[in-house]
Amino acid sequence: MNIETKTLNYLKAMTAETISNAKSGHTGSALGGSSILLALFDNHLNFDASGNNWPNRDRFVMSAGHASALLYNTLHLYGYDISMDDLKNFRKYDSRTPGHPEYGIVPGVETTTGPLGQGVANAVGLAIAAKKMNSINPTLFNNHTYCYAGDGCLMEGVAMEACSLAGKLCLNKLILLYDDNGITLDGEKVLSNNENMAKKFEAMGWNVILVDKGNDYHDCAKAISKAKKSTLPTIIIFKTVIGIGTVKQGTSGAHGYPLSSEELLAFKKSLGITESFYYPDDVVKHCNEAKRNNDKMIADWNKVYAKHKDEIESQLKSNPEEVVFKDIVKLLSEKPDMAGRDASNVVLNELSKSYNFFGGTADLASSTKAFLKDGGAFSKDNAKGNNIYFGIREHAMGSIVNGIALYGNFFAFDSTFVSFSNYMFPSLRMRSMMNIPALSIFTHDSINIGEDGPTHQPIEQITQLRSFVGLQTFRPATYAEVVSGYKYFVTKKAPTVLALTKSKISNPKLSTIERADRGGYVIYETGTKQQIEIYASGTEVYLAMKVADELNHMGVRVISVPNEKIFDSQTANYKAKVMLPAPVLRVAIEATNDNVWYKYIGRDGLLLNINEYQYSGNGTEVYEKAGFEVKTIASKINKKLKL
Amino acid sequence: MNIETKTLNYLKAMTAETISNAKSGHTGSALGGSSILLALFDNHLNFDASGNNWPNRDRFVMSAGHASALLYNTLHLYGYDISMDDLKNFRKYDSRTPGHPEYGIVPGVETTTGPLGQGVANAVGLAIAAKKMNSINPTLFNNHTYCYAGDGCLMEGVAMEACSLAGKLCLNKLILLYDDNGITLDGEKVLSNNENMAKKFEAMGWNVILVDKGNDYHDCAKAISKAKKSTLPTIIIFKTVIGIGTVKQGTSGAHGYPLSSEELLAFKKSLGITESFYYPDDVVKHCNEAKRNNDKMIADWNKVYAKHKDEIESQLKSNPEEVVFKDIVKLLSEKPDMAGRDASNVVLNELSKSYNFFGGTADLASSTKAFLKDGGAFSKDNAKGNNIYFGIREHAMGSIVNGIALYGNFFAFDSTFVSFSNYMFPSLRMRSMMNIPALSIFTHDSINIGEDGPTHQPIEQITQLRSFVGLQTFRPATYAEVVSGYKYFVTKKAPTVLALTKSKISNPKLSTIERADRGGYVIYETGTKQQIEIYASGTEVYLAMKVADELNHMGVRVISVPNEKIFDSQTANYKAKVMLPAPVLRVAIEATNDNVWYKYIGRDGLLLNINEYQYSGNGTEVYEKAGFEVKTIASKINKKLKL
Repeated sequence: MNIETKTLNYLKAMTAETISNAKSGHTGSALGGSSILLALFDNHLNFDASGNNWPNRDRFVMSAGHASALLYNTLHLYGYDISMDDLKNFRKYDSRTPGHPEYGIVPGVETTTGPLGQGVANAVGLAIAAKKMNSINPTLFNNHTYCYAGDGCLMEGVAMEACSLAGKLCLNKLILLYDDNGITLDGEKVLSNNENMAKKFEAMGWNVILVDKGNDYHDCAKAISKAKKSTLPTIIIFKTVIGIGTVKQGTSGAHGYPLSSEELLAFKKSLGITESFYYPDDVVKHCNEAKRNNDKMIADWNKVYAKHKDEIESQLKSNPEEVVFKDIVKLLSEKPDMAGRDASNVVLNELSKSYNFFGGTADLASSTKAFLKDGGAFSKDNAKGNNIYFGIREHAMGSIVNGIALYGNFFAFDSTFVSFSNYMFPSLRMRSMMNIPALSIFTHDSINIGEDGPTHQPIEQITQLRSFVGLQTFRPATYAEVVSGYKYFVTKKAPTVLALTKSKISNPKLSTIERADRGGYVIYETGTKQQIEIYASGTEVYLAMKVADELNHMGVRVISVPNEKIFDSQTANYKAKVMLPAPVLRVAIEATNDNVWYKYIGRDGLLLNINEYQYSGNGTEVYEKAGFEVKTIASKINKKLKL
Repeated sequence: MNIETKTLNYLKAMTAETISNAKSGHTGSALGGSSILLALFDNHLNFDASGNNWPNRDRFVMSAGHASALLYNTLHLYGYDISMDDLKNFRKYDSRTPGHPEYGIVPGVETTTGPLGQGVANAVGLAIAAKKMNSINPTLFNNHTYCYAGDGCLMEGVAMEACSLAGKLCLNKLILLYDDNGITLDGEKVLSNNENMAKKFEAMGWNVILVDKGNDYHDCAKAISKAKKSTLPTIIIFKTVIGIGTVKQGTSGAHGYPLSSEELLAFKKSLGITESFYYPDDVVKHCNEAKRNNDKMIADWNKVYAKHKDEIESQLKSNPEEVVFKDIVKLLSEKPDMAGRDASNVVLNELSKSYNFFGGTADLASSTKAFLKDGGAFSKDNAKGNNIYFGIREHAMGSIVNGIALYGNFFAFDSTFVSFSNYMFPSLRMRSMMNIPALSIFTHDSINIGEDGPTHQPIEQITQLRSFVGLQTFRPATYAEVVSGYKYFVTKKAPTVLALTKSKISNPKLSTIERADRGGYVIYETGTKQQIEIYASGTEVYLAMKVADELNHMGVRVISVPNEKIFDSQTANYKAKVMLPAPVLRVAIEATNDNVWYKYIGRDGLLLNINEYQYSGNGTEVYEKAGFEVKTIASKINKKLKL
């Protein structure tokens, strides 16, 4: 038996054992795809076993994340910091080998996968970033991006959108390893799908390679060799057998099934293996050779890089001069009054002098103003371009931008209307979970966008965006608050959302960056002793101020809250200064349906928000008829005070 | 000039005028697609101008909803209840001619469109429902489904998923009218897309027809004739010119542009038209002929239908015997304790005896248990089947189910994990907006699903689902609460979400349907005079009860809130009985990050929820380490009391 076969056999046996030991996991594709992964790591992948620090490493994304046990065993074999004990702890609490590959937890994992299709789109993003790096220095940056995907991934719309764009952009260093086992959880794939996948990918501008024996190591390796020579992105369709060699082979029963100890024993026996959690020395030595070759490659690369370091870092704006954010606020204030989206455009372009912004919109550049004026369009022939035309593909845009951000050299951004942010939610959740630095520039907030009607008028979206655990959503009311959102993004390098207006900001110059940075602060007061406090965000801050004028005789404090999570994180002392002591009527005004305001106004407060879809019509009319009007609000407050 | 050409000219002129008059709207595709729409209504569409009451009408979906002015003018011409005044009120507040076509507002509109791609997937749903009706009575039910779509729609993943399934199901009466004008908002389509669309659709099992002169009325009409004969779903690719005949013709500038009054005048002059908001008598007469033919067809159909009414209504379960819901609770209680998903399966199957359920899952039937035991698989050759295998296409599933529900004869349902409901959010928002009866059976709630890790553990999703304005989300803690959710769906016929557990319910028999129907109610009490009240939902209700036992000496009231919107809608009197009077410590326990609880517990209450992604690991361990454990909670309550 040659060493490759022996390695493959042990990889299969130990992968199955990892799952059986955990009594939980997905034996089916972990075994079915084993030859593909081995062929890749053994022959092709330029990897960095030290933990993905080498900038020019090939990127590998396991989009079919449920095959994680196969990945972890492969990483173990090729010298990544995953021990046999880690494999034994597969799917155990707080282990380094969780149920699905998690970025930041498992060494060697480029992106968290599990929700299907996401990894494919992340890979497209990684390949876009790689293409851009290649345009900066083709000798130093020329890595491939490999993505392992199953039927599930390729049925998902997000993957189809991303693959369509990959074809358009001619991402020839992107190689999709499609584990085509003809089986899904509910049975045979043909229950729900009978596409001609090869033809579909050709139609999208891809190179297609068919491998009939996808469980043959050598055939897999040869196909990848061919793919690397392509001038188009390549999909290799590997015909494989799910759960190969086990009792569940070729059936949907293999999918989420851990073999019983007897079945595992029989399976291992069929491969001539009796040991448990064990790789023989010659197998380990064989795999280590690939690692050594890679380590040498990295060392050589580092020598060349050292010579070009300054030049590259300068192009990547790696060491920006410190930005004075209050100067940007000043810059805005010196221009005629602008809409939120226009202010955002100014800030984005100003910051792009210091930070390496790279991103685009879902066919809304002219509407959301999220474009870099001197950036040019990123395309097949102009990889230096900084504006990506994602097409009308919001979901893929979000996941591709995740991939770009994960590559590591860019301040990545995406953009659409607040209302259509829903299309991107699965990618925003992954972004939130991985805490990766990407910015969403969402505009056309809120119901006062008017004529386009309820489909285009966000109500729930702000509530929903705020609810993402790791996402910071800014709904700015002033220039300083817009700048504060951008400042958060570039300084914290964390996922950030801006919800901006289409129409002119009414009181753009009222606050300072220091105050805005608090997340919540007193922006306005009327009267002498305040009996009413009003929380508001975005456009409603100006409305709250007008209400404060109207109720001047009672005294009103207006608190602008561009970001309630940041406000919550302030000291108790600060918050006590912002909030009025009881007795006071606490009011919140916001054209969303977020319940977060109850946190501040309590059971007895007055929440003036919106809980119905509105009408197509003149924006001001829509806004006022929905109750966002001074007299209406003042009278509701008066009524509440009389209760 | 023949009458068709004259009609087309006037249709174009008045469409442009409608938009210019509103000073807002999308002239580009409204003009570019005018010949397609006219050819359809004039020659092919079996419509019911009285307002879509005829069950066998052809369904027409304008997925590119921004071309609404064209649709409204066409509907006006063909005798729908849209007057010239309505056209003058285009995009005005609360008019019958809103910016995008709205279901329930505009007569003749089958589904609300605007967010791109949704209409295509709705059309697939309408075609699936039509195919099913055809299997019930092929003479009476044989309608076509037409969908007008642009580049935007066909780049969206949701449309690609839906079209892939349409191909698999051989929906030969589905005809996609693709207005291929080569232009998107940001410029030429090739900026972001260079697919071979014909080849792509062939690969998905579609019939493809190319029309080079897509602005030629007769060529359009002929192509639709051909499409109607196909044994596969058909896409007709009409090469058109955006904004044809105007100053902006053929450019992206035409997209969202209302012509100025001078430009409008010039445009109309080029068509030989000088009148405003006017259709000549011969044009009106010509269009009225199509209406009369249709009205006659409907009258004839009604005569045949009358003979088969009883038989069809029986098959559709149109007049179900009244269901006694407490008997279903009893039925559940007599079985061994079950998980939420299994209880749901029992209720679904029990109710399917009386209600015409039709739906399926995104390749998770065996996991979510959302299947009809005796239903069979819906397929090309078995349109009588009640279980749809949507494949791994959550987003399309949601929008297709919207289409099925809109057809009118079915209690439509879809199903996936709570965690992956994010993929369906754009379709859930449309469902919420249209208030259409469709049920989402979401399972594997919540973090205690364990090993699959944070990607599969919902935290934000419940918060987000609840926030949809028109959606009712139930998070049941008992059998009665599960049944209450189903009861709401079948009796209110409104959009409903169930969030169910994967694992066994711990106190399944504790409540009654009457109490559960209140949305919130006292489920448990300890001690004599209660000093603490705990709000909880789902799995946390049982935990709250255990905490109540632990703190028995202080007296604790546990309030189960399966649906907070329904609880809120109860009388003040009822709520005052449920809630303890002050002074009392108000606590909420929920494994979500929803802020809605502050509404009940106020500023001084104690919210024990979850604001971080959790780990892959044993479910109980994950749950307890996240703080959902009796001693931890009791000690937090004690600490709070001492403050």
